[in-house]
Amino acid sequence: MLSLIRQSIFSTQTTTRRASSYVNKMRTLEWWKNDDSAMKAEFTRGQFVLFLDKQPLVRSKERNAPGFNLQLLQHDVLKQALSDHGLTLKNSDAALLDATVADATSASASSEEEDLTAIFAVGLKSPPSSGPNSAGIASLSDSLSAALGGRFIDARLAMLSMEWNEEAKMVAKGQALLRWNRLYRKCPKCGSGLEMKASKTRADCSTCSRQFYPTLSPVAICLVRDESDEHCLLVRQPQTRKGVYTAIAGFCEPGESLEDAARREIAEEVGIELLSNVSYANLSQAWPFPNSSLMCSFIGVADRKIQPEVDHSELEAAKWFTREEVAAAFQATIKDPFLSSPADDPHHLSYIPPQGTIAHHMIKQWLQTK
Amino acid sequence: MLSLIRQSIFSTQTTTRRASSYVNKMRTLEWWKNDDSAMKAEFTRGQFVLFLDKQPLVRSKERNAPGFNLQLLQHDVLKQALSDHGLTLKNSDAALLDATVADATSASASSEEEDLTAIFAVGLKSPPSSGPNSAGIASLSDSLSAALGGRFIDARLAMLSMEWNEEAKMVAKGQALLRWNRLYRKCPKCGSGLEMKASKTRADCSTCSRQFYPTLSPVAICLVRDESDEHCLLVRQPQTRKGVYTAIAGFCEPGESLEDAARREIAEEVGIELLSNVSYANLSQAWPFPNSSLMCSFIGVADRKIQPEVDHSELEAAKWFTREEVAAAFQATIKDPFLSSPADDPHHLSYIPPQGTIAHHMIKQWLQTK
Repeated sequence: MLSLIRQSIFSTQTTTRRASSYVNKMRTLEWWKNDDSAMKAEFTRGQFVLFLDKQPLVRSKERNAPGFNLQLLQHDVLKQALSDHGLTLKNSDAALLDATVADATSASASSEEEDLTAIFAVGLKSPPSSGPNSAGIASLSDSLSAALGGRFIDARLAMLSMEWNEEAKMVAKGQALLRWNRLYRKCPKCGSGLEMKASKTRADCSTCSRQFYPTLSPVAICLVRDESDEHCLLVRQPQTRKGVYTAIAGFCEPGESLEDAARREIAEEVGIELLSNVSYANLSQAWPFPNSSLMCSFIGVADRKIQPEVDHSELEAAKWFTREEVAAAFQATIKDPFLSSPADDPHHLSYIPPQGTIAHHMIKQWLQTK
Repeated sequence: MLSLIRQSIFSTQTTTRRASSYVNKMRTLEWWKNDDSAMKAEFTRGQFVLFLDKQPLVRSKERNAPGFNLQLLQHDVLKQALSDHGLTLKNSDAALLDATVADATSASASSEEEDLTAIFAVGLKSPPSSGPNSAGIASLSDSLSAALGGRFIDARLAMLSMEWNEEAKMVAKGQALLRWNRLYRKCPKCGSGLEMKASKTRADCSTCSRQFYPTLSPVAICLVRDESDEHCLLVRQPQTRKGVYTAIAGFCEPGESLEDAARREIAEEVGIELLSNVSYANLSQAWPFPNSSLMCSFIGVADRKIQPEVDHSELEAAKWFTREEVAAAFQATIKDPFLSSPADDPHHLSYIPPQGTIAHHMIKQWLQTK
């Protein structure tokens, strides 16, 4: 949504007031998203989150405390380190992530607004290995992380392990925008080149003038419980770790509400028609794997006498479990976040998805609210 | 989600049972979406909703009762009428909308599943007028509707006026899929031609093998109330009819939850930071204008002492209103669904959005739940 914040177009119906920090930040971000020259002017004074081969650079917390923080880098530091490795820090590789207070002293009473600087994600790819082994690739990652501090880790692990939720969201946003920037190079209508905004939040066709925005795929994820509320239906997806059961999820399609999508996915995947409408489980979450999903949580009620009839092209298994079984799997997941000791029985419920995922939150919420 | 329903891959953990009609329908639709030969085989026995220049063909209810029904057409009837006008009924112009029972007698106890046929949307464009006036265009619309029964009406009007919600959803889905089918012709990554599934629910790149699905843009729409719950904040969008005020809406962005998007849009558009987290207002709705939006409803609380500071690039006005003022506008909207008599004062709240829109539902719900 276009804002012209710096051009005094905001009117107030009473007296002028100083915008809250939050409002100032959101309006500044909006300005940068749309105004390429303003965005580019922020580049050299910005801070950067580096993604190498889709892995963000993070640092461990002190004394081996659990969790990570993003390794935020100043422009000149990153530029120098990249240059030492034969790489260039370019605006075309960067996407706008967030804004942060540039200098705490500038937020004084005499200043009307805090001075903000941009935080960018920068995505780089290791050059192809020159030989049959990947020694060259490993060494760029090692060498860059040694120069900059921290280490590159899997983006999904980073999202689940960040100390601050705001930083997990920055990983999600960086992953999504950098991917979109790599993918959307041609106009889907006419095939001409697309021109990206400096913020990477819009792409314009150079020929037919159509505008494209980063694609988001809304997903309905639904926990199915029975009428007694003593049991829930969980499913095993073939690609997940042994012993992990989760809620049913699927992409929303054109013409559907999120609620319609939840009902349809349950019918498709386990052959069950819910007894009533689903209700929202009070959480949605951006989840950029494999693409940019927007996970929206629901709870539905089904008749437990109806056994699931599994679509084996999608799922490995689906079963009703008691509260006690689910609570045990929840505790096992908290104690063993890497889900490393599943039971030998392939159908046994050993774990639920790890903390930080929306499915974990939904199942925890169900366990707590009886 | 790929299903192989006809290949007996569904297992049931107890005894075999007859799937509910709903499950059978959802699994049949899934099968058609993914299996081009199965989908194409349905074409000649399918039913069709015709869109001419993006306008669906509808019929009025008897005796001028309010509301419309879709004019569903048999394949041969539509083919003949198009042929009489020099047009061809082609699979490439059709998108899968829904499934319906082919023949009521086939759903007997002896048959395991109901026999379903497909409902398609078919999108045609009037040929360019041969002269400076548009007499030619008007006559194709008139002549086709005379031949087929019913009339072509604006798709937005159709969505708001269908007697059955399921038919309104079919208009939304047809509008969205036909638009996507027209727009996604080239791979956004490599520029090669895309090959559409017969159902128009997926496009595959002929060169780089990437798969694309119809794009949906999730939107957070939020009604802001004050702490007393006696007032709500409504806004005027410049493109809407005079006197209409509504809730604040904006597109969700990568890395955000729906709840984050609602908070951000309120900050951007009216300069207000909400006092607490937003809560879901129990409804989402597909809304295909101008693109494929998925509207998700929320309610938020703000301090009424903070006057809105309007972003005039987005909005014309924003104001706090009392319950009485909103109730009067709600009543006026019910009585005058075409919103034809706004007050002379441009800032006066005369109407809310019409029945059938999510904003109408949210405002009605707020009025009813105090």
